[in-house]
Amino acid sequence: MRTQALYLSVGAILLAAGASTWAAKTSDEPISPIEPAVIKNPAMVELGKKLFFDPRLSKSGFISCNSCHNLSMGGTDNLKSSIGDHWQQGPINAPTVLNSSMSLAQFWDGRAKDLKAQAGGPIANPGEMGFTHELAVSVLQSIPQYVTEFHKVFGKDKVDIDQVTEAIAAFEETLVTPDSRFDQWLKGDKKALNEKELAGYTLFKSAGCVACHNGPAVGGNSFQKMGLVEPYNAKSPAEGRSAVTGKDADRFNFKVPSLRNVELTYPYFHDGEAATLEQAVDTMGRLQLGRKFNPEENSQIVAFLKTLTGKQPDIKLPILPPSNNNTPRPQPF
Amino acid sequence: MRTQALYLSVGAILLAAGASTWAAKTSDEPISPIEPAVIKNPAMVELGKKLFFDPRLSKSGFISCNSCHNLSMGGTDNLKSSIGDHWQQGPINAPTVLNSSMSLAQFWDGRAKDLKAQAGGPIANPGEMGFTHELAVSVLQSIPQYVTEFHKVFGKDKVDIDQVTEAIAAFEETLVTPDSRFDQWLKGDKKALNEKELAGYTLFKSAGCVACHNGPAVGGNSFQKMGLVEPYNAKSPAEGRSAVTGKDADRFNFKVPSLRNVELTYPYFHDGEAATLEQAVDTMGRLQLGRKFNPEENSQIVAFLKTLTGKQPDIKLPILPPSNNNTPRPQPF
Repeated sequence: MRTQALYLSVGAILLAAGASTWAAKTSDEPISPIEPAVIKNPAMVELGKKLFFDPRLSKSGFISCNSCHNLSMGGTDNLKSSIGDHWQQGPINAPTVLNSSMSLAQFWDGRAKDLKAQAGGPIANPGEMGFTHELAVSVLQSIPQYVTEFHKVFGKDKVDIDQVTEAIAAFEETLVTPDSRFDQWLKGDKKALNEKELAGYTLFKSAGCVACHNGPAVGGNSFQKMGLVEPYNAKSPAEGRSAVTGKDADRFNFKVPSLRNVELTYPYFHDGEAATLEQAVDTMGRLQLGRKFNPEENSQIVAFLKTLTGKQPDIKLPILPPSNNNTPRPQPF
Repeated sequence: MRTQALYLSVGAILLAAGASTWAAKTSDEPISPIEPAVIKNPAMVELGKKLFFDPRLSKSGFISCNSCHNLSMGGTDNLKSSIGDHWQQGPINAPTVLNSSMSLAQFWDGRAKDLKAQAGGPIANPGEMGFTHELAVSVLQSIPQYVTEFHKVFGKDKVDIDQVTEAIAAFEETLVTPDSRFDQWLKGDKKALNEKELAGYTLFKSAGCVACHNGPAVGGNSFQKMGLVEPYNAKSPAEGRSAVTGKDADRFNFKVPSLRNVELTYPYFHDGEAATLEQAVDTMGRLQLGRKFNPEENSQIVAFLKTLTGKQPDIKLPILPPSNNNTPRPQPF
């Protein structure tokens, strides 16, 4: 990338000023724009969308992927921790599904290597959708319209959980949010940000936030300790990465969340303890950077963060094929 | 209507055969086609759609109108009775919101005179969304994008619950399902139904089902006693219309449900006790008409009922304006 940037910069000398600004800007910044989704397999994406919205993948018939990763609300439920089967309180804040394909791994502790591996988790988690993979598949297998659609997409006679999670992941990969004001600015539209927002971005870089929050997702690409300079007073029992690696050194290491659409994905942190962006910026400054942002600095960074809200995915609500006399019925109570 | 039908039949003699068939058929049948929604106030409908999908109208921040009247699933939750705040079990089966504007009143006992009067009910019902109208309004009032949208639609400075329910009702009025195969047949396409389906419709009329299930919604336009010939062995404590009128004679009188999209709106009856259409047809035959349909008759009627599935509403998932620092937070636990 550096080489290419240099090449472009040199080339730019020969070009009009506007084009050179664009090339230099895109390459020099630690954050890169999000590009629109390229849909490779529309039939699989459409099937995945149905599954994402289908509450029959839960024991109760009431909870779908969209219940906690609500695409009307930034791909989250905007709750500290989620509501699961029989109204159980989840142990952790639901991360947004938006731009999640850009993460180095899934879940706060990174225990799933990709979206496909993630998608099976909540279905079978007794505290979330409370079902089993076998029962979820048997529901789908009983519905001829689903069987036909799975056959069309995967060319197999029987539905299995691998196909289910692959289709859900294919849909989720399309849930990107390009064209935020910040991306417009990155691409050369200098009017896309006002002075305060730009000051916030400058501070975001100089203060060191960008050390962890970088790349197209402005995060999501490393695990970091929550409470680097000052310890974090955790109320939640979640210990992060150590649950996966078994290493004590990984305690309180969590995946750095993407800051894309952060205005929509409140409350913040793995435990949802920060209700507002102001609180989140203040805590991060003190605990991770050893710096107390003054009110003006805090509000500049918050103003910058709000420019990261991108174009939300256009979703046409799917019409789900109905259950029939052979379909196992949900057990809500 | 009869006069007009006669007039059309006479006039038809002078017209081509095709046209006369159409005119006679449309006017003679006890069921009439559903026409597409005419949207009078698109801004109000769009606002109502947002509210319909907004779980912040519930105490928990988790339950929206769409949770129990899921537009991916025939406008119902496909559960015997619904899940409310803190996973409370509702006392009655959630009726579909589809074509509900055609009903003579709302709820199984008709206690709300129209959709606007209905919409406020679940929000403030402790067993459903568990909120209050005051708190729901205070959430909306705290969100500038909502305030602007309410102002644009209603021209008032402050949001109130009347505006909220009026907008939700305006959206719900658009949720009609025209163009079912049966409606195509009604409009003259003789190939739209096969022989078995037509036999089912003929039996539906001759056996007397049509006495209550008629009009464009194939029901929804009268209250009738559940258990007319034989008593209904109710497991649910719901007693229907008497709860509204206070009259003992109205015990077990319920609003006749619409049979539009009945393939999608399982399970059936006010208590959801009939899991399948076959069961529902059998019970209705015995209890309401004193007639035991044989398996062939039952399957003919079921085949006819499945032709009542119309074009489901095209819904683009709304993007909800985010809460901000002043917005009261949900209380899920």
